[in-house]
Amino acid sequence: MPQTIPYPGFGFDILHRDPASRARVGRLTTPHGTIETPNFIFCGTKASVKGVTPAQLREERTDIILSNTYHLMIQPGAETVARLGGLHRFMGWDGPMLTDSGGYQIFAMGHGSVADEIKGRRSQVREKTLLRISEEGAEFRSYTNGEKLFLTPERSVDIQRKLGADLVVQLDECTPYHVDRDYTARSMRMSHRWGDRSLAEFVRGGGLSANGLPQAMYGIVQGGVYPDLRRESAEYTADRPFFATAVGGSLGAHKDQMVEVVAMAMPHVHPDRPVHLLGIGGIVDIFAGVALGIDTFDCVSPTRIARHGWALMPGVPGERLNLRNARFREDADPIDPACDCHACRRFSRGYIHHLLKAGEMLALQLVSLHNIAVMNRLMREVREAIRTGTLDAARRRWVAPAATVKA
Amino acid sequence: MPQTIPYPGFGFDILHRDPASRARVGRLTTPHGTIETPNFIFCGTKASVKGVTPAQLREERTDIILSNTYHLMIQPGAETVARLGGLHRFMGWDGPMLTDSGGYQIFAMGHGSVADEIKGRRSQVREKTLLRISEEGAEFRSYTNGEKLFLTPERSVDIQRKLGADLVVQLDECTPYHVDRDYTARSMRMSHRWGDRSLAEFVRGGGLSANGLPQAMYGIVQGGVYPDLRRESAEYTADRPFFATAVGGSLGAHKDQMVEVVAMAMPHVHPDRPVHLLGIGGIVDIFAGVALGIDTFDCVSPTRIARHGWALMPGVPGERLNLRNARFREDADPIDPACDCHACRRFSRGYIHHLLKAGEMLALQLVSLHNIAVMNRLMREVREAIRTGTLDAARRRWVAPAATVKA
Repeated sequence: MPQTIPYPGFGFDILHRDPASRARVGRLTTPHGTIETPNFIFCGTKASVKGVTPAQLREERTDIILSNTYHLMIQPGAETVARLGGLHRFMGWDGPMLTDSGGYQIFAMGHGSVADEIKGRRSQVREKTLLRISEEGAEFRSYTNGEKLFLTPERSVDIQRKLGADLVVQLDECTPYHVDRDYTARSMRMSHRWGDRSLAEFVRGGGLSANGLPQAMYGIVQGGVYPDLRRESAEYTADRPFFATAVGGSLGAHKDQMVEVVAMAMPHVHPDRPVHLLGIGGIVDIFAGVALGIDTFDCVSPTRIARHGWALMPGVPGERLNLRNARFREDADPIDPACDCHACRRFSRGYIHHLLKAGEMLALQLVSLHNIAVMNRLMREVREAIRTGTLDAARRRWVAPAATVKA
Repeated sequence: MPQTIPYPGFGFDILHRDPASRARVGRLTTPHGTIETPNFIFCGTKASVKGVTPAQLREERTDIILSNTYHLMIQPGAETVARLGGLHRFMGWDGPMLTDSGGYQIFAMGHGSVADEIKGRRSQVREKTLLRISEEGAEFRSYTNGEKLFLTPERSVDIQRKLGADLVVQLDECTPYHVDRDYTARSMRMSHRWGDRSLAEFVRGGGLSANGLPQAMYGIVQGGVYPDLRRESAEYTADRPFFATAVGGSLGAHKDQMVEVVAMAMPHVHPDRPVHLLGIGGIVDIFAGVALGIDTFDCVSPTRIARHGWALMPGVPGERLNLRNARFREDADPIDPACDCHACRRFSRGYIHHLLKAGEMLALQLVSLHNIAVMNRLMREVREAIRTGTLDAARRRWVAPAATVKA
């Protein structure tokens, strides 16, 4: 493996730093465009941000999206996406895009509830889609037809090459919250070896996607809730020629512990590379992450809660309104009179309440558009606040006082 | 009841007549805009054309939509819609709009399967939401909470006034296919009396919606499959000061009988009024209806079949492609290379096939947009064909040879 990888077409410039925290404004360049950071990456799990078109995403000022390797390798398959021109053309998104390694879902589905555990919500549910983890890789069953599949670091890089996103991620074992320190340490070191194999495979492929555009690779910081392991893992990623850093694995049992865990890693990641925090996207979490130096976030939450009728709203307890609530039945106001999204420009709370109660698909589309617009506005205001040294004031506008925040 | 009703803000001008058939091009004016006929009215059953925004409807060149009184009187209720500014403002549609009387669904749900029977598909399924039909009106149970409701001609007009659509429809009893001639005749004559009561209530309300805009009323032609009854009913509507005529009730057991039934009525409807054919919207049916003098059609089919992955396609057997078919898996073409809808401009059959297989909402939105665009293009081409005397040629472009049409 070389000491450096050129990553042509990619760049990351830090434009402003907050003197009061580790927060920074940056510019992340990819072959599909440049975005400012901090920014939020919307989840298009199966090559679609649920219920909205790429044109609508753009209308709500979305900069960057991601898709999930695990879902796409199973259906429609990376080869099909490659034959149809790669993920950008396939799904009609021409902006920057990230794919993950596939590891998270293998382990999440394998452990049954790792998604909960990584965020500290314990559960005893177990399924058996994950068959075996070994040094070589992970054997698991397809969630669609039960077929046995095997994912190695090399195969993950190869699939991501065929999918053709700009930003790709090394395979790691995503350790859940309930495992012990020894397991976490052994797993983390295996993930580091998987990171080296991912980089070697990336270099072997010339750093190019199947349609000939350059890609750039993220290394992942593991280490669970253990400060020395987080440091070791962050230093591992900084020592390798990754383009960028992602903070993954268990982030603890609650929001405060998430902040602690990220804080363990951040002083030790490569200071000049973009840093992504995997799977976190609450408004309060974003202010915490930004202050620790996180540049990008992703989470299914904005569009998932939209499908349950929850509209993101700055400054209210719980960060959202439940539009299914009967008090909105004859409410002629838009979701948020201060919002300029398509839903707020055209429709009332009363109408969206009706659509939700009637089970109309349009409700999910409209609340999704709103929540997407809110996240994009949040990130624009966060960037502006960093530039002007007013991050605390922005946080007070967006986040309700702690005493009234619902769990 | 007056001999005439002024219908201010409304008009219907016949601009061209086809010398070879009863087809005609007209201009239908309403307080929310003018449309050319023949035209297709898209169903926004519960105040939403499923899965698409009004802006998207407009982008696909939609002229006119309808909503269903039955669904809206139950949820959210006509009073709620009125308080939120009427149906146009409520659902964000600023163009012409029709509401039906509520009768069709009461009887459809009451008989369990009248929708099938009206189109000749017999079934023995029966539910008991329809409790009683009397001279006074229809008593039925709400499909949401079982509450007993009573709909009279007067109440239907009042609800439609509160909803505030431009075009409103008299209450009728929608007789299913399986009833005998005597029942059909008695029911038809009751519907005529209901028509008179509807007009009287309409006049009593000043012909204005709750938000003060004028409305215009359709009379309905009933009479089942019996030529003398259809004639009697058509003459009834022509003798009364309805703004327009709708052909309803059982249209027979199959497509040929539908054409026969419509042909029984059309020589006897008022020749200067717009004529709507209720619930019919297959491409082949539209060519048949237009030739008989029908000016507008409505049907849930274009958007309903979209949600099952069926894309309308001119000239193919069955009028549609099944995009779930495995042969589209790696098909890089748009649904129809000749179509300029949003879905065809941006996405491949392969991608939409993937979305359908993955259960992604976006599939339903994209195929709906396509089918809406196809219906609007069909109607534009039908109008142009009438103007240029080329209706047969247009029919040959759009409809596959009969021998290959699937049932």
